[in-house]
Amino acid sequence: MAEIARDNKQMQKLAEELRLAGKRIAFVPTMGYLHEGHLNLMREGRRRADNLVISIFVNPTQFGPGEDFEKYPRDFERDERLASEVGVDTIFYPDATSMYPPGYQTYVTVEEVSRNLCGRSRPIHFRGVATVCTKLFNIVKPHEAIFGKKDFQQLVVIKRMVKDLNMDLEIVGVNTTREADGLAMSSRNSYLEPEERNSALSLSRGLKIAKELYDRGERDASVIIKAVRDFIAGHEHTDIDYVKICDTETLKDVEKIEGESVVALAVRVGRPRLIDNYVFGEPLDIP
Amino acid sequence: MAEIARDNKQMQKLAEELRLAGKRIAFVPTMGYLHEGHLNLMREGRRRADNLVISIFVNPTQFGPGEDFEKYPRDFERDERLASEVGVDTIFYPDATSMYPPGYQTYVTVEEVSRNLCGRSRPIHFRGVATVCTKLFNIVKPHEAIFGKKDFQQLVVIKRMVKDLNMDLEIVGVNTTREADGLAMSSRNSYLEPEERNSALSLSRGLKIAKELYDRGERDASVIIKAVRDFIAGHEHTDIDYVKICDTETLKDVEKIEGESVVALAVRVGRPRLIDNYVFGEPLDIP
Repeated sequence: MAEIARDNKQMQKLAEELRLAGKRIAFVPTMGYLHEGHLNLMREGRRRADNLVISIFVNPTQFGPGEDFEKYPRDFERDERLASEVGVDTIFYPDATSMYPPGYQTYVTVEEVSRNLCGRSRPIHFRGVATVCTKLFNIVKPHEAIFGKKDFQQLVVIKRMVKDLNMDLEIVGVNTTREADGLAMSSRNSYLEPEERNSALSLSRGLKIAKELYDRGERDASVIIKAVRDFIAGHEHTDIDYVKICDTETLKDVEKIEGESVVALAVRVGRPRLIDNYVFGEPLDIP
Repeated sequence: MAEIARDNKQMQKLAEELRLAGKRIAFVPTMGYLHEGHLNLMREGRRRADNLVISIFVNPTQFGPGEDFEKYPRDFERDERLASEVGVDTIFYPDATSMYPPGYQTYVTVEEVSRNLCGRSRPIHFRGVATVCTKLFNIVKPHEAIFGKKDFQQLVVIKRMVKDLNMDLEIVGVNTTREADGLAMSSRNSYLEPEERNSALSLSRGLKIAKELYDRGERDASVIIKAVRDFIAGHEHTDIDYVKICDTETLKDVEKIEGESVVALAVRVGRPRLIDNYVFGEPLDIP
């Protein structure tokens, strides 16, 4: 079974001892309620390092008012079992008070890349993500940290932060894990009612439409965006937050697809707000 | 002579090697133009650690528009000699472009403690300080970092940041080094014209007045502040930015001096804006 560390100082001391012993640490930060997508990040970490640490922490500072912090799904015992099965050495499992004690007041902001896409409807989200990752990196002291490409903007924000703040670790992005029908795995899929499930597929299928247009030579972002929007809007229970095509580094909207670009979308399907994305030119395994 | 590292990656690699070899690193960040105050910080570091690293970097992000970034005094050759004389092992001496390359966009903000005192007239100053210290700590990987108590608010901001972001290092505060006549040492004293020098003494002498009132039992902050303001304002060439009495941890203004409190002041004397402070109950060596 994986060892459980609940105390910041205990985890940090363990990490420092591992480093001094010459061990390589891989780290997968999570909010728990693990699914196959998380487990694939852990398998990648397991392959890369001597010690694999994950964190399970539903981070309050990345949820805005009215978002699903309170209701975010949690099941630590199941998480512990799944993590142990894929070979996690240590689960860092702090409580919110130890991470944000009274008087807490320090935040890390990654400015431009946090503004577009999800940053528009979730204005403090990426500040919360950057801050908690800084804290977790300082506690876990990883040589590499592994993130899913499903949260594309998060990956860009973290990479930018690590570079800008000279953090001495490598950020590794891992391809999105999908259900057999193409739905990107997400803890929030558990919110979907049975009758909404088919509508949720409109996200990944919308990306496939974008890919097909691109592969046939379309480079006008507005044409692709319109096709994807129309397709998704044609499904019941869907409420589109955004469909955008952006430069993969700056996350600024592009009109013509020239450099490396990503089509990213966020759609409320019944209760959950789901996200997905596709980088043009890459493979996309959707039936 | 001290070794000079100009490259972030080179410095970071050296620091990691030192840590892996079990060496203890002390770090003194400076903006150069070293004086006896800086050298006392370095002597403290020399006593505490196996390896003493200093940085010399006039950090653009902590200067506001119209402040003295361009004109800040610089003399690297003299700094190198002085640092070597007190036993500095490595001088980290980066250029601004390597610290803030194009596309740079990440900032660390320590909110409440940055707002009062110098934060009022220098609104982005402590964001710049917190950000560059985060970067320097990530590059130099010190076990302890040594700061002067002359920059009292800076010390509070950095301590709060280190605690909040779980940075694994100790912040050490060292007493202010003063000229024989009591003037707190500062690189900016070099801006003083000869006829302003006596007026500059009104800062430290004002603190002495505050101490004497406190020692005689005065606990009403407004009474002490008025006495100090009147004394300083009675000197030519002085323009008071603030005289305040604050809680030493929160830096919030106090009306009655009960918990640990500091009287802090900022005064423009001719060209330079000078600062000084005194924590009630501590010794104060001013003639």
